[in-house]
Amino acid sequence: MQELVRGNAVIGQSGGPTAVINQSLVGVVEGLRSGLHAAGLVKRVLGMRHGVRGLTKGEFHDLTDMHQDRLDRLANTPSAGLGSTRDKPDEAYCERILEACKKHDIRYYFYIGGNDSSDSCRIVREKAKAANYDLRCFHVPKTVDNDLKENDHTPGFPSAAKFVAMACMADFMDNISLPGIKINVVMGRHAGFLTAASALARRHDREFNPLDGTESTDGPQLIYLPEVPFETDRFIADVEAWYTKKGRCHIVVSEGIQDKDGVPIGAKLIKGAQVDSHGNVQLSGSGALGDQLGDLLKEKLTPAGGKPPRIRADTFGYVQRCWPDASPIDQMEARRCGQFAAQLALAGHHDGSVAIVRQGSGSEAWLGKDNGQPYISTYRRVELSDVAAKTRHMPPEFIAGHNNVSRKFVEYCLPLVGPLPGFERL
Amino acid sequence: MQELVRGNAVIGQSGGPTAVINQSLVGVVEGLRSGLHAAGLVKRVLGMRHGVRGLTKGEFHDLTDMHQDRLDRLANTPSAGLGSTRDKPDEAYCERILEACKKHDIRYYFYIGGNDSSDSCRIVREKAKAANYDLRCFHVPKTVDNDLKENDHTPGFPSAAKFVAMACMADFMDNISLPGIKINVVMGRHAGFLTAASALARRHDREFNPLDGTESTDGPQLIYLPEVPFETDRFIADVEAWYTKKGRCHIVVSEGIQDKDGVPIGAKLIKGAQVDSHGNVQLSGSGALGDQLGDLLKEKLTPAGGKPPRIRADTFGYVQRCWPDASPIDQMEARRCGQFAAQLALAGHHDGSVAIVRQGSGSEAWLGKDNGQPYISTYRRVELSDVAAKTRHMPPEFIAGHNNVSRKFVEYCLPLVGPLPGFERL
Repeated sequence: MQELVRGNAVIGQSGGPTAVINQSLVGVVEGLRSGLHAAGLVKRVLGMRHGVRGLTKGEFHDLTDMHQDRLDRLANTPSAGLGSTRDKPDEAYCERILEACKKHDIRYYFYIGGNDSSDSCRIVREKAKAANYDLRCFHVPKTVDNDLKENDHTPGFPSAAKFVAMACMADFMDNISLPGIKINVVMGRHAGFLTAASALARRHDREFNPLDGTESTDGPQLIYLPEVPFETDRFIADVEAWYTKKGRCHIVVSEGIQDKDGVPIGAKLIKGAQVDSHGNVQLSGSGALGDQLGDLLKEKLTPAGGKPPRIRADTFGYVQRCWPDASPIDQMEARRCGQFAAQLALAGHHDGSVAIVRQGSGSEAWLGKDNGQPYISTYRRVELSDVAAKTRHMPPEFIAGHNNVSRKFVEYCLPLVGPLPGFERL
Repeated sequence: MQELVRGNAVIGQSGGPTAVINQSLVGVVEGLRSGLHAAGLVKRVLGMRHGVRGLTKGEFHDLTDMHQDRLDRLANTPSAGLGSTRDKPDEAYCERILEACKKHDIRYYFYIGGNDSSDSCRIVREKAKAANYDLRCFHVPKTVDNDLKENDHTPGFPSAAKFVAMACMADFMDNISLPGIKINVVMGRHAGFLTAASALARRHDREFNPLDGTESTDGPQLIYLPEVPFETDRFIADVEAWYTKKGRCHIVVSEGIQDKDGVPIGAKLIKGAQVDSHGNVQLSGSGALGDQLGDLLKEKLTPAGGKPPRIRADTFGYVQRCWPDASPIDQMEARRCGQFAAQLALAGHHDGSVAIVRQGSGSEAWLGKDNGQPYISTYRRVELSDVAAKTRHMPPEFIAGHNNVSRKFVEYCLPLVGPLPGFERL
C-alpha cells in the first residue's frame, strides 16, 4: 500500500434519493472518524450540499463533530440529507471540481450514487492525477434500479423492492375484492429489477409455493420488463386471456418498457410527451404511461355495443424510492458500504468503488429449508471504470417468457427484502 | 328491549376496500359467536360474496366455525376478504335482497360500508317490516373518506391518513433533496379529510411545533380541499410565490377539488375524461388530474424563452386505502365496531348503525403535555337514517384559509394515526 495523504474529506450524494442513501453517508462519516480522522490525517469531514454543484460553489455541511445520535437519526431518514443533484459533470465541470478540491484542501473524495457518479469520480481522479494533485476518489453504490455492474445488488434496491412487493400484495387483494383490470407502473428506465420485485407479492400459501415451483395465480399475473421487447398486440392478448378466465387481471409494467427497436412505449403512446435535456421522455412523476395503456385496453377489450371493463392504472411514483420503512438488510448494507469506502482510503487505496458480494444465498434458508445457507454479504473494492457509465440488466435466468420472472429471481430477491406480511384469503 | 328472533346471520362488505374492513368483519363474527350464536339463536354466520350481489345469488362463505387463528390473520389482511361490490340497490334490488334473506332464513343482516351501505340497510329493513318479516339490520361504518355523519371518525380513515402522512413526509424530503414543484393527488371525491392528513407530514422540530403554533415551512406547503372552491389563477399565484421564495413547492390536492359552482376541476382540465354510470368523472386509478395541473403550472411558470421548472405529479392511487401497515387504533376500533354491532343485535335492537365517539381527545397528551387527556373512544347506536346517504365534510374549524388546514385538525388527526417516524434534517 502506498502512503497516506493529509487533508480534508468531502462526501456527496447524487441522483435519485433512496430510503438508505443517508445510511451510506453516515457510514462514510463513521469510517473516517474512527480511521483517518482519528489518525489525524483527515481534519474536516465535509458534506457537499447538492453534490458536485455545492462543492463547486463551496457550500458544505460540516459533519466532523456531529453527535452520534443525530447521525443515527439521519441514517434512518429517507432521501439525500445533503441534497442531491442531477448534474452530470463534463470535462470542464470536472476541472471546476478539482479546483474546488484544491481550494478547500480536499484529499479524500467520496461520492454516493449510481453509474454516472462512479464515472464522474473516475474523471475527477484522472484530472487530479494529470495535475499532480493527490486526490483519492471513492464511489459508494446507490440506486433503486439495481443496475450497477460488479454488484450482487445495490443499496436502495431492497427497500424499494419491499415497497413494490407490499404495494402489489395489498393492491392484488383490492383487485380480487373489486375485480377489474389493474395496471401498476414501476420505476426503472433501463433495468427491470424493481418491476420484477412485484413477483414477491405472490405469496398466498394455497396458490404459490416457491419451493415446489407451483405456478401462482396470485397477482401480478403479468409482469413486463424493459429487457423484453414489448409488443402491444401480445400485451392485449395476454390481458384478454386472464380477463376472460378470471374476470380480472393484475398487471405490472416497468416505466421503461420498449419495443424491439428500443423505442420507449411511453414515447410512442403519450401524445406531446415531455423530453428532458438528455432527450429522454419524462417517465417518473407522471401517470401518463399507465393511463395510455389503460385507454388502449379499454379500446380493444370493450365488446361492440357493450360495457367497457373496469380498468384502473396507478403509477407508484416517488414514494417507492423513499418510503420510510426500509428493508433492514438494506439499511445495514448501505451503512457498511459507506464504512468500507472509508476503510479503502485508510488502507491507502487511491480510488475504487465498493461492491456487495453475496456469500450465502439465503434463499433456501429463507424459503424454509432447515439446512439452507443463511444470507451473508461482504464487500470488495472494484475499479471505478468497471462500474462507471455501465448498466446491468436483468440476466436471462431471472426472466421467464415475455411476461414473467423466474423462480431464481424470487430466490435472489426475497432475502434482501426481508419479512413481508402474511395475508389470509377466503 | 324486544325479544330476539331465531335464524341465520349474514355479513357483507361494500364499496372501496380499506386496510381494516376485515377487522370489522371479524368483529361481527366474534360478537355473534360469543353472543347470539352461543345462545343458540343464530345458527349459521354467513359471509356474502361481493356484498348484496352475492347474497341475491346465494353465494356465501360460511364463517360459523372458522378457526380463531384464521380469523386473526384475516382481520390483519387489507381489502375486503369477502369481496366487495359497487352495486347501490334500488327498490327492486332490495326486494330481491329480502327474498334471499327469506330463502336462507336470515334474521340478522350486517352490512359494512359507507353512507350508501347504511342507506341500503335502511331500505331493506323497511321492506322487511312492510312484508312482516322479522329482519334485523345493522350498519358497520367504513370509509377512508371519513365522511359519515354522527361519527367522530370512521374506520379505515386513520390507516389511510397514516399512509398519506408517511408518503408526504418522505416525499417532502425527496423534494428538498432534488428541488422542484411536486404535486401529490389524494383520494376523496367530496370530503377533504384524507387530503388534510398530509399536514401531519410537517413534523420537523426546527420548523413546526404544534404546541406553540409556529408556522411550518415543511411540506406540504399548499393543501387544496374539495370543501374550498378551487380557483386556478389563485393556485398558480400560490405556487409561484413559494417557488420564487424557496425554489421548490410541495403541494397536495384532493382528487375532488371543484370550482365555486361545484364543477370538478378534473372534469374541466381533463380532455376526453371518462364518466361512470353515475355521471362522475373517473378520478381514482388515473394520473390525469395531477398531470393536467402539472401541465398548467409548466405553461404559466416557464419564463419567456427560459427553462421550465422541474414539475412532477404523483397520484397516490389504491395503495393509500389498502397499505398493509394500518394504524393500531384503527385496527382496534374497526374490530370493536363490528363487535358492537353484534351486541346491538343481542340487546334486542331491530336496526341501527355504529358510531365512534371520542371521549378523550388525546391531542394534548399526544403533543407532549403531561396532564393532557389520553385518547379514548367508545361506541354508540345511531339511527340508520341519520347516517344513510348523507355526507360529512371538513368543518370550517379544520380549514385554514384557502390552501391549508388548522392546528385543530392536526390535533384531531394525530392521535388516530399513531406514531410517525422521526426524521433528521441537516
